[in-house]
Amino acid sequence: MLIDINADLGEGFGPYSIADDEALMPLITSANVACGYHAGDPVIMDRTIRLARDHGVDLGAHVSFPDRMGFGRRLIQMEPHELEKHVLYQLGALYGLAHPVGLRIKHVNPHGALGNLASADKCIAETLVRAVRSFDPEIRFLVLPKSELEVAARAAGMSCWRLFLADRAYAGDGQLAPRALPGAVIKDEERVVARLVRLIKEGTVETIDGGVLRMEIDSVLIHSDTPGAISLARRIRQQLINNGVVISALSSHVRKE
Amino acid sequence: MLIDINADLGEGFGPYSIADDEALMPLITSANVACGYHAGDPVIMDRTIRLARDHGVDLGAHVSFPDRMGFGRRLIQMEPHELEKHVLYQLGALYGLAHPVGLRIKHVNPHGALGNLASADKCIAETLVRAVRSFDPEIRFLVLPKSELEVAARAAGMSCWRLFLADRAYAGDGQLAPRALPGAVIKDEERVVARLVRLIKEGTVETIDGGVLRMEIDSVLIHSDTPGAISLARRIRQQLINNGVVISALSSHVRKE
Amino acid sequence: MLIDINADLGEGFGPYSIADDEALMPLITSANVACGYHAGDPVIMDRTIRLARDHGVDLGAHVSFPDRMGFGRRLIQMEPHELEKHVLYQLGALYGLAHPVGLRIKHVNPHGALGNLASADKCIAETLVRAVRSFDPEIRFLVLPKSELEVAARAAGMSCWRLFLADRAYAGDGQLAPRALPGAVIKDEERVVARLVRLIKEGTVETIDGGVLRMEIDSVLIHSDTPGAISLARRIRQQLINNGVVISALSSHVRKE
Amino acid sequence: MLIDINADLGEGFGPYSIADDEALMPLITSANVACGYHAGDPVIMDRTIRLARDHGVDLGAHVSFPDRMGFGRRLIQMEPHELEKHVLYQLGALYGLAHPVGLRIKHVNPHGALGNLASADKCIAETLVRAVRSFDPEIRFLVLPKSELEVAARAAGMSCWRLFLADRAYAGDGQLAPRALPGAVIKDEERVVARLVRLIKEGTVETIDGGVLRMEIDSVLIHSDTPGAISLARRIRQQLINNGVVISALSSHVRKE
Repeated sequence: MLIDINADLGEGFGPYSIADDEALMPLITSANVACGYHAGDPVIMDRTIRLARDHGVDLGAHVSFPDRMGFGRRLIQMEPHELEKHVLYQLGALYGLAHPVGLRIKHVNPHGALGNLASADKCIAETLVRAVRSFDPEIRFLVLPKSELEVAARAAGMSCWRLFLADRAYAGDGQLAPRALPGAVIKDEERVVARLVRLIKEGTVETIDGGVLRMEIDSVLIHSDTPGAISLARRIRQQLINNGVVISALSSHVRKE
Repeated sequence: MLIDINADLGEGFGPYSIADDEALMPLITSANVACGYHAGDPVIMDRTIRLARDHGVDLGAHVSFPDRMGFGRRLIQMEPHELEKHVLYQLGALYGLAHPVGLRIKHVNPHGALGNLASADKCIAETLVRAVRSFDPEIRFLVLPKSELEVAARAAGMSCWRLFLADRAYAGDGQLAPRALPGAVIKDEERVVARLVRLIKEGTVETIDGGVLRMEIDSVLIHSDTPGAISLARRIRQQLINNGVVISALSSHVRKE
Repeated sequence: MLIDINADLGEGFGPYSIADDEALMPLITSANVACGYHAGDPVIMDRTIRLARDHGVDLGAHVSFPDRMGFGRRLIQMEPHELEKHVLYQLGALYGLAHPVGLRIKHVNPHGALGNLASADKCIAETLVRAVRSFDPEIRFLVLPKSELEVAARAAGMSCWRLFLADRAYAGDGQLAPRALPGAVIKDEERVVARLVRLIKEGTVETIDGGVLRMEIDSVLIHSDTPGAISLARRIRQQLINNGVVISALSSHVRKE
Repeated sequence: MLIDINADLGEGFGPYSIADDEALMPLITSANVACGYHAGDPVIMDRTIRLARDHGVDLGAHVSFPDRMGFGRRLIQMEPHELEKHVLYQLGALYGLAHPVGLRIKHVNPHGALGNLASADKCIAETLVRAVRSFDPEIRFLVLPKSELEVAARAAGMSCWRLFLADRAYAGDGQLAPRALPGAVIKDEERVVARLVRLIKEGTVETIDGGVLRMEIDSVLIHSDTPGAISLARRIRQQLINNGVVISALSSHVRKE
């Protein structure tokens, strides 16, 4: 069994940083790199891309709304045709820095408010897929299972890989339990790792209301900006290896369908 | 004889516009498109790129310092390695919008303060050339004759095409006379056109102090944001045609060297 | 009878302008000045403030969401306590430029998406009122009659003055007819002026569905960025004067209550 | 003897922070608060202002060039009349958030590239003084001794208080030794404190070339973003108290002249 580990990196800006990219990069196989919209700037993007290259990590575009002050967590009202151009601008900017270094954009993962919207809103999901497809139809989408983004990407013939958020509780229908719900965010490192191991071994997750949910996943997300991210990433790697899982980037996986 | 006519387009931002891009596009053969740094945004860039495609106009990147409020006319102190990444970000962003439309970036032309600096400063010129070359070595530079940018681009084996600013006076050494000098900016449309015709027919320009300067040029710049730009462009086209010049984009020229 | 004429001014940015502030300023009595969020920058704000002073025009703050690219027309999700600080930042910035020139902020008028929200959303209206009141309780609000902003401002003991949009159709309940409705925006200058004259003389407006609506108003808004704004402003002034109305800034009106 | 301790605070932006403002505020007597140009945003400014109020710390404006990506450390070419308006915008914005909380701006301290320029360039120094004076002539300047800013402020009749940078070496003429020089930045906490104690007790500093410099100072700067800033601030306080110095904000000092 193959599993990818991904994280959002390059989320600093100018003098600021928010995660320890250098410590995390050796522990993951896919990096979702901020493109200067919610975070990142050309210098940080270049540094993150080179770090990914040095560690053989797949490069992905972590596209978002143009909102540094709000870190891309605020909804920005935008017409679909406008959003499409903003996504292309970001993909291109990342390409501009990755191409001279010899890397290609392998996947796309929408950030924050855009990610939420692309999961829930068919029109936004289709807009995002249309933009990415017109840029490079080989790019994979990292999606929440059963999200509108997954539906739209598959409908357009694009490759989708399913994310597991080990530190988030799931509802019975496979959706993430809203953050506001008690127990929706799992902070205990032990439990986070145990959930992942169970999913790997049994293919199931305990839902927030105590039920059992079957899930198939391709990639585990490490939240790079939470305290203890490095330690959690190390334990997750170790447990995956102990359980016979091969940790490798999505681009080396073979789609079952 | 072949001559290219170029102009800086796509220099609006959000609700603002500064030139009549739709009227100018049919009159030129190369468009220098703002990349969101001194002007432009993804929606405007897309519109300008499509307009260029519709009129068979060559697409160029009008790269600059990141300074919308100052319209790229202010020097921003930056380390060369930072500037290099900012140039790549802009080239990539333009690529991101042009690639889905089927256009390639054919040339680069630095804007405003960056343009002045790249003409005068060897280190900045080399930085700009290094960035563009690492992105795509086929890209041409639009340069002022004998500028540091021309020297750096030729040294790196890249193609250079020489700009003529018909509405600007030249000093005896072939450099632009500083704007502050009386007579440095020529506002009379008649005289602007006459200077171009003389250059075409005789290969010479009258310098600001009454001397005669030999120049070889490949492209005439139309300042898109000056009043009367459209009318001037029309007259220039007419005069060039009347004098047996073929107006065509640089990408169809054949380098003599 | 006294009537104020107001317009949104100072809506340029860096090299860009959007309206002919110098021609409009002598024709109005209140200027709503952009504070660098949807438009405006310190240099433009200063120029607009001095222009207002020179023509004896009342200074108002045209506060908005932080969104130059979207010209403040896009909703930006924001917590009330965040919005409150953003409003104070803008009021202060305008004060910083007006105080040395000897002007005070006399009124506030929210722009674009913030204006729409403050009219319709009680919580946003109260947040805006709380911010302005904590800055200076003497500041007046320019409001749409019966909007949540009017309710919130009156409840807080602040002075409200009612706007009339002469070029917009009204529904029977006194609300603006949505722009999407045919006939909602009145482009014929003749009709716009006639509506205003009727309102002045008879105190009524014809609604979009042919009914008659009684309105009391204090100020007429001239849309500064529509073509013909200057000519419309001149005709409105003339008609008001012809009908015995005194055109004067709100600060010289006496509240009837 | 009275000494003020000041630090640059509120230098975060959106999701980012750069110093531990909450730990530092109780240890200082003057806070130089970023105004949204090189750092800071309305929410952070408000939080920092309230923290200053709660700890009885004097509020100052840490004005700078508009450059968040470069953290105000890059020179931005600007005409004096433009810079003047940018300074007023920042002073006003800080006033807008401080006034409702009941605080006044007591001092101004230019940041980064603007600070360097205001120390060295007479015209920029005079521009800064003119802006601040027109806003509020009671505001004090925190200056490097013998800088152009001190000269300009005194010439305009404004109050100046002299900064000591305990972790920076001085040249024989009283100027800061350039950072590039070996030994220019003193990292050993012990030595930093010893330098301050000597200055307090003997009124002298050892210069970078081993000489002795007489200095009179009013305020010690703690660099808030260096590692160990909190610990250094605590030791400085303790040593000052041990040596009979009273730590108090500049507004409670009485000018000797």
